[in-house]
Amino acid sequence: MSLRDRAAVTGVGETAYTRGSGRSAVALSLEASLAAIADAGLSPRDIDGVIPVTGRGAIAEDVIANFGISDLRFSAQVPMGGASPVAALQCAAAAIAAGICRHVLVLLGRDAFPGGRVATGVHKIPAFRTVGEFELPLGAVSPAQLYAPMARRHMELYGTTIRDFAEIAVTTRQHALLNERSIMRKPITIEDHHASRMISDPFRLLDCSQENDGGAAVVVSHPDAARELARPRVLISGVAEGHPDSPASITQRADMTCLGVAKAAPRAFAMAGLQPADIDVAEIYDCFTYIVLCQIEDLGFCAKGEGGRFIREKGIGLDGALPVNTHGGLLSQAHMAGMNHVVELVRQLRGEGGCAQVKNAEIGLVTGYGDMGDGALAIMRRG
Amino acid sequence: MSLRDRAAVTGVGETAYTRGSGRSAVALSLEASLAAIADAGLSPRDIDGVIPVTGRGAIAEDVIANFGISDLRFSAQVPMGGASPVAALQCAAAAIAAGICRHVLVLLGRDAFPGGRVATGVHKIPAFRTVGEFELPLGAVSPAQLYAPMARRHMELYGTTIRDFAEIAVTTRQHALLNERSIMRKPITIEDHHASRMISDPFRLLDCSQENDGGAAVVVSHPDAARELARPRVLISGVAEGHPDSPASITQRADMTCLGVAKAAPRAFAMAGLQPADIDVAEIYDCFTYIVLCQIEDLGFCAKGEGGRFIREKGIGLDGALPVNTHGGLLSQAHMAGMNHVVELVRQLRGEGGCAQVKNAEIGLVTGYGDMGDGALAIMRRG
Repeated sequence: MSLRDRAAVTGVGETAYTRGSGRSAVALSLEASLAAIADAGLSPRDIDGVIPVTGRGAIAEDVIANFGISDLRFSAQVPMGGASPVAALQCAAAAIAAGICRHVLVLLGRDAFPGGRVATGVHKIPAFRTVGEFELPLGAVSPAQLYAPMARRHMELYGTTIRDFAEIAVTTRQHALLNERSIMRKPITIEDHHASRMISDPFRLLDCSQENDGGAAVVVSHPDAARELARPRVLISGVAEGHPDSPASITQRADMTCLGVAKAAPRAFAMAGLQPADIDVAEIYDCFTYIVLCQIEDLGFCAKGEGGRFIREKGIGLDGALPVNTHGGLLSQAHMAGMNHVVELVRQLRGEGGCAQVKNAEIGLVTGYGDMGDGALAIMRRG
Repeated sequence: MSLRDRAAVTGVGETAYTRGSGRSAVALSLEASLAAIADAGLSPRDIDGVIPVTGRGAIAEDVIANFGISDLRFSAQVPMGGASPVAALQCAAAAIAAGICRHVLVLLGRDAFPGGRVATGVHKIPAFRTVGEFELPLGAVSPAQLYAPMARRHMELYGTTIRDFAEIAVTTRQHALLNERSIMRKPITIEDHHASRMISDPFRLLDCSQENDGGAAVVVSHPDAARELARPRVLISGVAEGHPDSPASITQRADMTCLGVAKAAPRAFAMAGLQPADIDVAEIYDCFTYIVLCQIEDLGFCAKGEGGRFIREKGIGLDGALPVNTHGGLLSQAHMAGMNHVVELVRQLRGEGGCAQVKNAEIGLVTGYGDMGDGALAIMRRG
């Protein structure tokens, strides 16, 4: 059996994205869930599967209790950091295809982190445990510091430049300005990028995603049920997760310039019967600019090392060969650990992309990237 | 599609169960995993799916890194406390039936808790969050205190007595004495039970499970692959999870005497095409004696309220109508959060039950119970 077209995303929902909402991640994730369920034309009690994205948001029991679900049949988590929302699509599709449930809610909530808590506590996250042995003693305690050597290595091997990173930051910001849900409201230039303060060489401030409060959720349904629901059907045609070699340490990895999504990509494309050239729009996890560039290569849009050239010559803007992060991404819309990427892809494929709508977008992809390089990829199509 | 017979347990493994091993839960869970993989006749690199049971044990990244798995295709967690090992069987079966992977490792490790840590920290576990609002202010801070009102309510409604609980404790200990892997090595009597010190009324010491170190793991495989492997094939014929109403608080529940497994049972039995009368052996989660009695009712072996009589009249010993916890359970073998129950059921169905082998055991069930009443049930058969 293949999971091709065995599930559809039927509802998407978001809260406002803000800083200092004063609300809990649980409340935010439940608000987004209600929005997603309403978007699908369902009632909260129709939900019979729940995949909470790991973190501070709601757990399955919160969903049951608050929505009055009387017979939840499937609950799981896919703790892969920012790859979790997309990996959750694979898990949800499997549960639906197996006949366990009909409507799986995937939800995420984030509230603002007290200053420094994430940075100094990263080694307490299980996936970062080994950091305490290899990277932490060298002073790398935050994601920016952990991932910077990957970018620097790519620059050394392939001649990638900070100009390439800047292009991603600027284009993503342009998209954010078209999106009323974006936190970042000010245009930026290449020069602004280069002038922004250094965070961890080669990452400057404008290479880094932000922190904020918010909730986002999607409903994944049986394709038959999806046919009867409120919105145009968006099928999950290919989906896979992938883990890097030596996942527990970046600096001990044989190849520092290749992410887990490189393993997921051939499987997801084969499942969908599609190729990178078929993709109309791509929502690519962007905790840092470089991570987008690396994934463009890992996904097969160009050869390894050619990501910078691809971005310069083909273009990742709305009129480029590959429109990327049409919502403004983590860099400029909001950091929702990639759940906002899933929401945006579904909107694009429904033709609900508003000012950032990619013309005739029928097939698209969304990626996740998490922890020390875990990746996930979903290829979706209207149909 | 149904998950009936779509997956098989092909390997089981355990470490020694001890107190104060001085080893980490990660190391213990990986040792048990290697034992399970060897038991199946597989190599560690054959594993392409991992479901770590939530806790202090290994995560997927540990398994990848330590076993050198190059292309892990599925990872998830099912955080349902002691229901997780059995709920993981449903998740693993779905991933296998969906064609994502062939061999899913489900693993668990526990190291001893510093005195009092679990008890005072229970409200920090997400599933116990609401305890802080309803039960904690009344002084209920440990599982024994949280679950005691359920047992007391059952006694009030149905005339269940501590003699019924004692019967479970004594029978389980008898089974443990037949098992060289058991921590508890001393026979106990009904009088010993009644004389043991009160922990939380009505639970005495001998109603409570123990704490210890150890690891346990199973490999779940595609049924075709299972046919070619080392051991007699044990198919997962019916599997389901179930969540109680009002999962976030026990004392706010309309019915305190009914667990989540009551919702899972009709679905799992229907999937398997079997009835309670078909069950030759039952490994039933036993964090406290009462929890066994309650599940015997919830599973449909007798009517609600008749559990005490069932145990007295039908018998749960090796020569009873329903042999229960043939390994000694959490009460007397070891607290492995129910993973040892899964291991034991597979051994029984293979005929590897040693001195505690139930004669002609061909069909059996294993349950999990977790957190505030979450439940899971798997019905397996040799075939």
